[in-house]
Amino acid sequence: MTKISLQDQYSPQSACFGCGPVNSKGLRIKSIVEGDQVVADWVPEPHHEAFPGMLNGGIMGSLLDCHSNWTAAWHLMKQGGAASPPCTVTADYAIKLLRPTPTHGPVHLVAKVVESKEDRVVIEATLTAGGKVCATCRGTFVAVKPGHPAYHRW
Amino acid sequence: MTKISLQDQYSPQSACFGCGPVNSKGLRIKSIVEGDQVVADWVPEPHHEAFPGMLNGGIMGSLLDCHSNWTAAWHLMKQGGAASPPCTVTADYAIKLLRPTPTHGPVHLVAKVVESKEDRVVIEATLTAGGKVCATCRGTFVAVKPGHPAYHRW
Repeated sequence: MTKISLQDQYSPQSACFGCGPVNSKGLRIKSIVEGDQVVADWVPEPHHEAFPGMLNGGIMGSLLDCHSNWTAAWHLMKQGGAASPPCTVTADYAIKLLRPTPTHGPVHLVAKVVESKEDRVVIEATLTAGGKVCATCRGTFVAVKPGHPAYHRW
Repeated sequence: MTKISLQDQYSPQSACFGCGPVNSKGLRIKSIVEGDQVVADWVPEPHHEAFPGMLNGGIMGSLLDCHSNWTAAWHLMKQGGAASPPCTVTADYAIKLLRPTPTHGPVHLVAKVVESKEDRVVIEATLTAGGKVCATCRGTFVAVKPGHPAYHRW
């Protein structure tokens, strides 16, 4: 069974660089709920590299940031019993690059909730490539209120 | 007087997503030494946005990561009295997003060294847009040794 991604389900018109389905120059990640985690597989293109064969660290951060933000939005939706996710934005994210990340195959993202309050969630995520965890991320994502520039913008 | 960027001077053939001069689909930042800081101005394109008018957080991380890495490489070059920078890679970087970042004009990056050892440097950097600091970065950048996959690759 193919599951629909959170992006395609809840924000099909988004043009966000990291996760917008309609941004043909973006990364277009597809975050899939899998139990209590959210996962994604993503295939690098040559222009995403730092040098031939190795993925750029900023791209890894972009993948982990958007994937984690969607994990937070999905969690808050569930927690609040809502029909659609709230608008969440990134407050902070911290990336550790553990080893060079090969680009000859897909990278796999796994994100989970580690702390949760009414309007904000801390997410931890990993990026695996070539069978090894190559990068980790810990970030804080906040549901914005009416009046915030991002409110109802995605 | 127009100063040549660190990228154009020391790595003109790099195709790195964030800073490679020859990556036509990359961000192609130009990091310029200005006293004891390194600065850059960069103009967003629509596909770099999170939603119309606001810059994506992953792109901000990519800009700050590559700019800070070059600041570290430049510092180690000076510190070692070398003619060219060592190959440095990112060990970690942490981004704080302080407010939405407008895309109607250029963003300005400023990076400086805050800690330095023989082979690694901690850099702090800011991203300013619309007259306000919108994001900060603190990262650790390491000169790799022979045998590392990144050695002499940029």
